Amino acid sequence: MANTLKNDLLIRACRQQPVERTPVWIMRQAGRYLPEYQAVRAKSDFMTMCRTPELAAEVTLQPVDIIGVDAAIIFSDILVIPEAMGMGLSFHEGRGPAFESPIRSRSDFARLREINAEQDLSYMLDALKLVRRELNGRVPLIGFAGAPWTLASYMVEGQGSRNFIEIKRMMYSEPALLHELLDRLSDAVIDFLTAQIAAGAQVVQVFDSWAGILPPQYFQVFSLPYLRKVVDGIKGLGVPIIVFAREAGHSFDQLSEIGADVLSVSWTEDLAEARTAVGDKVALQGNLDPCALFSTPEVIEREVKDVLRKAGSGGGHVFNLGHGILPKTPVDNVKALIEFVAKHSG
Amino acid sequence: MANTLKNDLLIRACRQQPVERTPVWIMRQAGRYLPEYQAVRAKSDFMTMCRTPELAAEVTLQPVDIIGVDAAIIFSDILVIPEAMGMGLSFHEGRGPAFESPIRSRSDFARLREINAEQDLSYMLDALKLVRRELNGRVPLIGFAGAPWTLASYMVEGQGSRNFIEIKRMMYSEPALLHELLDRLSDAVIDFLTAQIAAGAQVVQVFDSWAGILPPQYFQVFSLPYLRKVVDGIKGLGVPIIVFAREAGHSFDQLSEIGADVLSVSWTEDLAEARTAVGDKVALQGNLDPCALFSTPEVIEREVKDVLRKAGSGGGHVFNLGHGILPKTPVDNVKALIEFVAKHSG
Repeated sequence: MANTLKNDLLIRACRQQPVERTPVWIMRQAGRYLPEYQAVRAKSDFMTMCRTPELAAEVTLQPVDIIGVDAAIIFSDILVIPEAMGMGLSFHEGRGPAFESPIRSRSDFARLREINAEQDLSYMLDALKLVRRELNGRVPLIGFAGAPWTLASYMVEGQGSRNFIEIKRMMYSEPALLHELLDRLSDAVIDFLTAQIAAGAQVVQVFDSWAGILPPQYFQVFSLPYLRKVVDGIKGLGVPIIVFAREAGHSFDQLSEIGADVLSVSWTEDLAEARTAVGDKVALQGNLDPCALFSTPEVIEREVKDVLRKAGSGGGHVFNLGHGILPKTPVDNVKALIEFVAKHSG
Repeated sequence: MANTLKNDLLIRACRQQPVERTPVWIMRQAGRYLPEYQAVRAKSDFMTMCRTPELAAEVTLQPVDIIGVDAAIIFSDILVIPEAMGMGLSFHEGRGPAFESPIRSRSDFARLREINAEQDLSYMLDALKLVRRELNGRVPLIGFAGAPWTLASYMVEGQGSRNFIEIKRMMYSEPALLHELLDRLSDAVIDFLTAQIAAGAQVVQVFDSWAGILPPQYFQVFSLPYLRKVVDGIKGLGVPIIVFAREAGHSFDQLSEIGADVLSVSWTEDLAEARTAVGDKVALQGNLDPCALFSTPEVIEREVKDVLRKAGSGGGHVFNLGHGILPKTPVDNVKALIEFVAKHSG
């Protein structure tokens, strides 16, 4: 399917093939910083937007049309998997997502429903199909899922957390139960990403947003093996795989060997050092500080040049932020970012 | 003064001298996990406790008596410097500290009062003198201050922050103003630590709690030079200096060369890799995950042995957590921790 794309820069950069210029997309690019997104969101709650393919498609396409990014990423949330497992997800304004009944014991774990993505997450697959049709090859479409460790962290904590005491308690005191949960989630993620690719996703990204709450030696035990399992499970499907293990730069070397095509680098890490750590085994994605977009075009241009310089000329590079774009980011600065990436990488 | 100490393990470990066993203290050891602390806190608000030498001394001594740590650290807060500068500090239960008028412009900066620690922070100096007297040489007394970058972050944000947009905006858009603020804060920190040492502090720790919100290249510009200035300013006073640049492991190598005696290592970093990065140039402090204390004595013993093994036998090691102890930590587990450190390092 990739050869029907009018703009396949992202696909080629992920595969470390030559590109005319560095492709750029933005984590959370379909989001609150855009007035056009806010207009849709004002009429529907977050989960309704996720569950309604027409609404999800509309906001997915906005940054392609308005900002000019080189990829669309389907509008959804990593928590749709635990939600489908029956965990009772709700979103509270200002407090983030929360689950009714967190997983704290083996009996909680036993309550989780077995899911099948084709049936239980069909709304997201329908949204992907709709976006693929409406994109009509303009840019590639990215699918995504949460990494097992990050999903488990939300499911055990029950909500966003500052100190992650509950998932750590399980990690230290009941590691066997946690491994069972992680294994189960890995299977669900593989099933879901496989279905997303069948529905039209041309690239997939796995978000291990809470990788950084693990001490390095436990990242090796509770995150890395499940990232590897997920990548193994979808590796043969022919689409590039991006892994974002946020703030796990301590393990770039091992991450570069799990079979992913691209590692996404947090803004808290040095992109040049990441390149040194991984050599040419993978392409890199990132890693502008999202806060830099609150400054001036002059500063943004300087920062873009710095990121491009650190990415180097060998090995693929996908320009992105080093974390999701923040809600009040000025839209003009985002447009300027896209222009500067083109200007200085072309 | 150190030679009058009955237990000078901390002093010797900081100086990388031989010790019979590894000394241990705990960041925030005088704090909410202790019922005896809560009893004092129930009768006085946080700032009243800081400002009343008898109350500050009482809670400072509690962990020495109850837990058996090898050092006392004076009960206070890093924000007493900006408070003395006239920023109107308040503490809201559950929301943390906040300043009435954050520093956002040059005119805000111009409003800051020049301070003199002997006059404006005499309450903390009096508390130090009182604790020194009551300790009577049982263990060393640690003084402390916030690092310039971390103080500036609080002063510009006005409160604890998730994304630190305001301090980043100043960093990207008005770096000259930020440098002036950091320089001014460095002088205040030097003055304050000098006064603390004169008042009886036998070790000092500089807390750069927000070092990790800086992209690595900007840590080099906005934090490291001011840490160096602070260390230079107090280096000649004869007491060991501990620097805790939280989540700035990317710069251990440079941090080991600013003249500090000890680097404190976050739990998000690998202590063995920190040792490799710094060689024997400094002692290391840390770095048990505070969440490990919510597990069982068996797990805590295993984790203690792991930290001690990674600390290695060459170079000094001060056992500590890799961040402050959490409010609901079981006290018995803290006592067990102290015993395990003695058992496995003796």
